[in-house]
Amino acid sequence: MEVFRGKPMREQGRRPVRDQAGEQPWEIVPGGGVTTPLGFHAAGVACGIKRKGRDLALVTSVVPARVAAFFTTNEVKAAPVRVSMCHARKGIARAIVINSGNANAYTGVGGIRDALEMARFTAKLLRCRRSEVLVCSTGRIGRRLPMEKVCKGICRAWGRLSPEGGKDAALAILTTDTRPKEVALRFSLGPTEVVIGAMAKGSGIIHPRLATTLCIVTTNVAIEPQALYQCAWSGVAQSFNRILVDGATSTNDTLIVLANGLARNWPLGLRGEGTTLFQEALRRVLRMLARKILEDEEGITQVVEIVVRGAGSQREAELGARAVAQSVLVKCAWHAREPGWGRIMDALGCSGARVREELVDIFYNGVQMVRQGEPILVAQSRVRKMLSLPHLTVAVDLHVGKEEYSLLTTDLTAEYVRRNGRE
Amino acid sequence: MEVFRGKPMREQGRRPVRDQAGEQPWEIVPGGGVTTPLGFHAAGVACGIKRKGRDLALVTSVVPARVAAFFTTNEVKAAPVRVSMCHARKGIARAIVINSGNANAYTGVGGIRDALEMARFTAKLLRCRRSEVLVCSTGRIGRRLPMEKVCKGICRAWGRLSPEGGKDAALAILTTDTRPKEVALRFSLGPTEVVIGAMAKGSGIIHPRLATTLCIVTTNVAIEPQALYQCAWSGVAQSFNRILVDGATSTNDTLIVLANGLARNWPLGLRGEGTTLFQEALRRVLRMLARKILEDEEGITQVVEIVVRGAGSQREAELGARAVAQSVLVKCAWHAREPGWGRIMDALGCSGARVREELVDIFYNGVQMVRQGEPILVAQSRVRKMLSLPHLTVAVDLHVGKEEYSLLTTDLTAEYVRRNGRE
Repeated sequence: MEVFRGKPMREQGRRPVRDQAGEQPWEIVPGGGVTTPLGFHAAGVACGIKRKGRDLALVTSVVPARVAAFFTTNEVKAAPVRVSMCHARKGIARAIVINSGNANAYTGVGGIRDALEMARFTAKLLRCRRSEVLVCSTGRIGRRLPMEKVCKGICRAWGRLSPEGGKDAALAILTTDTRPKEVALRFSLGPTEVVIGAMAKGSGIIHPRLATTLCIVTTNVAIEPQALYQCAWSGVAQSFNRILVDGATSTNDTLIVLANGLARNWPLGLRGEGTTLFQEALRRVLRMLARKILEDEEGITQVVEIVVRGAGSQREAELGARAVAQSVLVKCAWHAREPGWGRIMDALGCSGARVREELVDIFYNGVQMVRQGEPILVAQSRVRKMLSLPHLTVAVDLHVGKEEYSLLTTDLTAEYVRRNGRE
Repeated sequence: MEVFRGKPMREQGRRPVRDQAGEQPWEIVPGGGVTTPLGFHAAGVACGIKRKGRDLALVTSVVPARVAAFFTTNEVKAAPVRVSMCHARKGIARAIVINSGNANAYTGVGGIRDALEMARFTAKLLRCRRSEVLVCSTGRIGRRLPMEKVCKGICRAWGRLSPEGGKDAALAILTTDTRPKEVALRFSLGPTEVVIGAMAKGSGIIHPRLATTLCIVTTNVAIEPQALYQCAWSGVAQSFNRILVDGATSTNDTLIVLANGLARNWPLGLRGEGTTLFQEALRRVLRMLARKILEDEEGITQVVEIVVRGAGSQREAELGARAVAQSVLVKCAWHAREPGWGRIMDALGCSGARVREELVDIFYNGVQMVRQGEPILVAQSRVRKMLSLPHLTVAVDLHVGKEEYSLLTTDLTAEYVRRNGRE
């Protein structure tokens, strides 16, 4: 790949320096998406998998791109995930083909064959190897894909590939989402301009679908494989691994980062200011998308950030935060505009984190509700007003150590239960 | 204690033998409760902790009784639990004093003092040691007990102690329960008659209360300490540790077994047919109460038994069953009369149990829904009918081992969310 030619490293130093001077080193590209970075084309078409609307997306890079991909941790993995896991190992990809309306999960060996066929068919059109095509699916489970429609769709999408196709692709991967989710961000690496574009999908978990989150990130940066993986992983750990609605992990969850190197910068290594800058930018993109997914969750009224401080260890901090975020009772209380601090203490006590009741402080949006394990009298009206805001921050200080962990979750509403039961 | 005189062991053999012949070795005492066994008195009175209704119960034994007690596993424990844990260590008790309407949780050192005072005051009236009195509380959290009212209440209850007071006591420990929960069971141990009586409390988790479950078991059997603990523990493991509504463990959960030995049987040891018979009877009593608690849960429409078979280990079987029982999505689906088998597979996949998708079978009330990881077409109408029944059995066979675990849970309804948010 020619992308390894470029400017020497030292020239990358400038921006972070300016950053320290307070200036944002990057800017958000309005209306940008996966096709904003140079050399990425996309298309989204309707091929009849869903009753109506676009349901097949194709994202390609004009040159082979480096891949970093992350898949669901669920033991039960859908066919497209199994296939993409193999293909991603090669580290190089030319295209990603995504269908919505059918998750191709619980479809046995036949499903694997269908996923492979999607890759093979796409590869034939793009004149690349099958292993250079990654496959994603989301939608209904337990049903085989209508392969004829799918292949027709891939054909049509291939015909419509263009640098303006990002929006169509973002629309084609949606299932129960109420709106497409796209982000693009631009920053300079010395004399070269690096762009990161991304789209995501993820929302209500209407039976019989599961809350698949798909996320495709494209960038024109030139970066070495390990460095790309490291940057992507730290980004995921800070974003998609820190949102929690119902604790379900779908069989199809997939996050793919493609870097085609057309920025022609000196390839970023594991260290260096350039890498730091790119890592920070990527994390920012992923966090924006993760938040968009939460805000698009069906039947919820509140996005809640939970911060657990002063834990004995990082792991304990995470255990505590997740226990609170997963407590049905806590989430019911928030929705009913009740503080529910007792339920938080209760969840913490069962979380596996070291908790000394007489040390615990709890703050809602900075207002102390609990001091040393005992409630503080706060005016009911004030509490209700605070809990009626669309964003709530719950900070818990365990005072047994120095570690901290935070994540985003939502309240639990009757509406959510109704929707998630519905066919 | 004179209870150690009695008939030789061999005479206890008869009943189990008759049991093998198909005959039930025990019979349920209609309308029985904690005062059904000889030598137990109880009373339940109103002392004004709750706005209305009985809110203080006293259960006493005319002779010192052996104790086996189990308390919440939550790191955060309410004052009465901390006090009772110390007192129970002595292994001998004369009385249990219980108040509802105030859980005496999150009340700091003052709360501990109040709980100790309840024990001291009761002990003074009964002319026994303070350490021979156990204390339980349930109700609102974060508020000190109105000790004047409580002491007046204890006085009044003491004055009304009687062998007919079981029902009043069962009423006095209720919070949001819709009905009292009592069981009594009688069986012969050779020539002597053994009676087990019990009452329990536990229901809706209306903010700011938590789902405290209290369970008091009384029996006139003579039994050695280790044997009593062993029988009680195996009973708890088979009953109260196998119901799950929202995965919350309250700060006040308490289960106490008192055995006063007035049956004058030869004290039961760790082994022997008599012990087996008693253990089986006790387990039966606890299972009946546990089920009553689930059926009294607020806003639920269905009690669901989850059985995970063919797991690689006992632990994996339990992990799988609990993951399914705790999945918000699965419970939503049941309530909406949707099979939601995909959500069950999904929960199993994340549970930590070894799952091989292509081996999993799922049965609803004996009807197979999933074979080897793929759905079976079952008439929608049939599924709906099945899921509309008040009791549902979901059996999952993982086919990776031989271990099995089962537990009881409920569906999740919009009504439940509404009620549990309400003040």
